[in-house]
Amino acid sequence: MIFSSTRSETQRMQNEGDMRTGEVAVPWAAATDAGLVFIGRIETPWKSRMACPRQGDERGPLCRITLFEPWTAALDGVERFERLEAIYWLHLARRDLVRQCARQDPVPRGTFALRSPVRPNPIGTSIVRLEGIEGATLLVRGLDCVDGTPLIDIKPDRANFRQA
Amino acid sequence: MIFSSTRSETQRMQNEGDMRTGEVAVPWAAATDAGLVFIGRIETPWKSRMACPRQGDERGPLCRITLFEPWTAALDGVERFERLEAIYWLHLARRDLVRQCARQDPVPRGTFALRSPVRPNPIGTSIVRLEGIEGATLLVRGLDCVDGTPLIDIKPDRANFRQA
Repeated sequence: MIFSSTRSETQRMQNEGDMRTGEVAVPWAAATDAGLVFIGRIETPWKSRMACPRQGDERGPLCRITLFEPWTAALDGVERFERLEAIYWLHLARRDLVRQCARQDPVPRGTFALRSPVRPNPIGTSIVRLEGIEGATLLVRGLDCVDGTPLIDIKPDRANFRQA
Repeated sequence: MIFSSTRSETQRMQNEGDMRTGEVAVPWAAATDAGLVFIGRIETPWKSRMACPRQGDERGPLCRITLFEPWTAALDGVERFERLEAIYWLHLARRDLVRQCARQDPVPRGTFALRSPVRPNPIGTSIVRLEGIEGATLLVRGLDCVDGTPLIDIKPDRANFRQA
């Protein structure tokens, strides 16, 4: 499996040629305040970012989330939930834009006013419908990310714990 | 501001005295696949993890999310949204349990079947109601985390982008 390295990430950010009018980048410090471990890998039908849907859809295609060891033991009990929250690392996204244009919207907006993958910490979240489990693989609908996206967390949808 | 260092995190994980019967830890490799930057700081009324609510509540107390530079420019446009998704780093949580007991539940369960802060990547997510903005500070209700929690992302609630 190949994930983007820090080197390629830096190179991509320095390539300002792909910025649109009104987009604003900030200097990117390589400093890291906390470290993530990739705990699994997501398989989807979308082979490029352009092919991904704007947002996950529970009626969308079946996708596979496969956990790596030693984390498979932590799946025990997820079968009790109809919906899970998947959290993943948008490894192809640049991280230095504070103002950007959304797809099909020429007006640049603040990054935190968009769900674009481009953000200081490129984390994606989706609520997925659990359709089945095959060993260390969850079969789900509702994802929106490119094939090969690294998984960083899975938890029950918060709606399962809502106060009365 | 003081956040937990890798050293203190490792020390905490080696302290198995605070594990409950049936909980299972795995060896924790220090390897990091991706790095997070802390983009802000969350102020809540809860000074310890034990004091935190089990889940955020939109009727709960007002909390403050303050963005650090250079990310404040990325807030432009968030005022258009009634609800935002806040993503934060649960900096006090150990990361090595694959099976654990929830509060008030003696039966150990797989980590991914719980919304406990203890998980391989201790990331918390809440849907918050935006009550106001003061400069670089968002006033919100619906958080569940301890005072001083590092912020890693803010985005509009996905319900704003749902397909018809």
